[in-house]
Amino acid sequence: MNGTLDLYIPTFEDVKAAHERIKPYVHRTPVLTSSFFNDLSGAELFFKCENFQKAGAFKARGASNAVFGLSDDVAAKGVATHSSGNHGQSLSYAAGQRGIKATVIMPNTAPEPKKAAVRGYGGDVLECEPSTAARERMLEDFVAKTGADFVHPYNDHRVIAGQGTCSRELHEEVGPLDAVVAPIGGGGMISGTCISMSALSPATKVYAAEPEQADDVYRSFHAGTMIEDDAPQTVADGLKVSLRPRTWHFVSTAVHDVLLVSEEEIIEAMYLTWQRMKIVIEPSSAVALAVILKNKQLFAGQRVGVIFTGGNVDLKKLPWI
Amino acid sequence: MNGTLDLYIPTFEDVKAAHERIKPYVHRTPVLTSSFFNDLSGAELFFKCENFQKAGAFKARGASNAVFGLSDDVAAKGVATHSSGNHGQSLSYAAGQRGIKATVIMPNTAPEPKKAAVRGYGGDVLECEPSTAARERMLEDFVAKTGADFVHPYNDHRVIAGQGTCSRELHEEVGPLDAVVAPIGGGGMISGTCISMSALSPATKVYAAEPEQADDVYRSFHAGTMIEDDAPQTVADGLKVSLRPRTWHFVSTAVHDVLLVSEEEIIEAMYLTWQRMKIVIEPSSAVALAVILKNKQLFAGQRVGVIFTGGNVDLKKLPWI
Repeated sequence: MNGTLDLYIPTFEDVKAAHERIKPYVHRTPVLTSSFFNDLSGAELFFKCENFQKAGAFKARGASNAVFGLSDDVAAKGVATHSSGNHGQSLSYAAGQRGIKATVIMPNTAPEPKKAAVRGYGGDVLECEPSTAARERMLEDFVAKTGADFVHPYNDHRVIAGQGTCSRELHEEVGPLDAVVAPIGGGGMISGTCISMSALSPATKVYAAEPEQADDVYRSFHAGTMIEDDAPQTVADGLKVSLRPRTWHFVSTAVHDVLLVSEEEIIEAMYLTWQRMKIVIEPSSAVALAVILKNKQLFAGQRVGVIFTGGNVDLKKLPWI
Repeated sequence: MNGTLDLYIPTFEDVKAAHERIKPYVHRTPVLTSSFFNDLSGAELFFKCENFQKAGAFKARGASNAVFGLSDDVAAKGVATHSSGNHGQSLSYAAGQRGIKATVIMPNTAPEPKKAAVRGYGGDVLECEPSTAARERMLEDFVAKTGADFVHPYNDHRVIAGQGTCSRELHEEVGPLDAVVAPIGGGGMISGTCISMSALSPATKVYAAEPEQADDVYRSFHAGTMIEDDAPQTVADGLKVSLRPRTWHFVSTAVHDVLLVSEEEIIEAMYLTWQRMKIVIEPSSAVALAVILKNKQLFAGQRVGVIFTGGNVDLKKLPWI
């Protein structure tokens, strides 16, 4: 929580160091192709499948980098975060791998399976009232009391550096791309992607894909200043959070464009992916593909990387049923 | 339809020839592992993922072998079959690759998406009354009239040889296994598996996995004579068909055991696979995994291959919803 540390903007050197550090704990996920989606889009698509990642999402990269970068003394006090989604599970997973305690603050309205997933990896869940103020107060109190290290879901240079390993692997696997499209919520994945692409393939354009119904990044990008969402509602539940200074830095300086899609377009892309590629992706993952299918003229004839960010979805509540 | 040809039992030489023949038209599918299922079963599991195969199922192998083994003269008259499932789609796919016509006889009660899938690959659908007699009469008439080559879904040596390429790839990928478990319906996959395993790794035990509610193979195996099912009802819709002489040959001489699972066990294994492996498999695929989870003591500590036979499932009607 040191001020200087807080403002640090990670570099590609940090991504490389993160990659070495997390290798034993995360998967090098496969890059899949689909003749169906190539035909449908007119582009050559390379899907980086973080739905197959440990704990079911790319978040395991950033969380593992934070957890395994701690000194033994600090680690002994555990880690903590607030998250009702993939970051909470991933931090619990990473802490379990290191043999330390993770505590995840979640609103008492969070679905039971989300709490069970954190506990399944050995983490503790602390429930708070469902407000930002309540969540932040409980986290501050907990950190003050225990000395646990706070690992923010995305506004943390260690987390961003960890997420950057994903597009580094994509580049190693398929070579230079014309574009990479990744969904954006708080911006951790996009920030990491910008770092790796600007170092490895500066000509590659990085597109942020966002739901129309959670369009804070789109509005911020065009306003030139960071605007927060006010309790957005979208099927892409991983993308409801807002930018923070570190991720806004990358969005405002390195993202080529922000493209929006409707709820129907997200659900259709998700459905088609399950049906034709036979893989389970969560709605947030589908946002990137939906952007490509909506903007065919923009990507036609290009080699395009698509980040499928995760596969954690309630199989009993599918958005097309 | 020649008597001598009909009785031919394929060998591993046929599998190798099939492999060369079909390579340009089918995927060499990946073999996945899952620490979750290893922990749950106590065995080391290797999942051969034919859900990622062309047309969504292993059937593309046998169908491609039949279609591409035809002389140009015979091929010009097209191919025909009866199937309301994966074989029909696969034959349509293979015929499309060769640029010839496929005709699939389906009961007029078959769901519209199944017909659409056949047509989507360029095949024709002929509808008949929903009885075995009506289906066979229409097929005979069609073949007599057009000279089309009849490619039976499994009681065909070319089809069996094609299916054998699946476990050959599995063996090439992971080396000798203690056991291979595959679902059984008509027995094409199991027969091909027996051929490849007995040639490549004779010590590997081949288990046939079958739904309790479609247990003709189990009863046949224990009676020592081929018994047909009478309109069985199971969620594993690919496994409702009965053995035929060529596949009974392998079941009665080369299968180590036939193991049964309930509908609930099939659905649970399918659900867990989607949830933890993030891949879409159809209920028939889940039968093999369900057998392993039900018989942990039998497979504990062993290296076990599991054939995930396909991934064609109606995403709008999932068995756990």
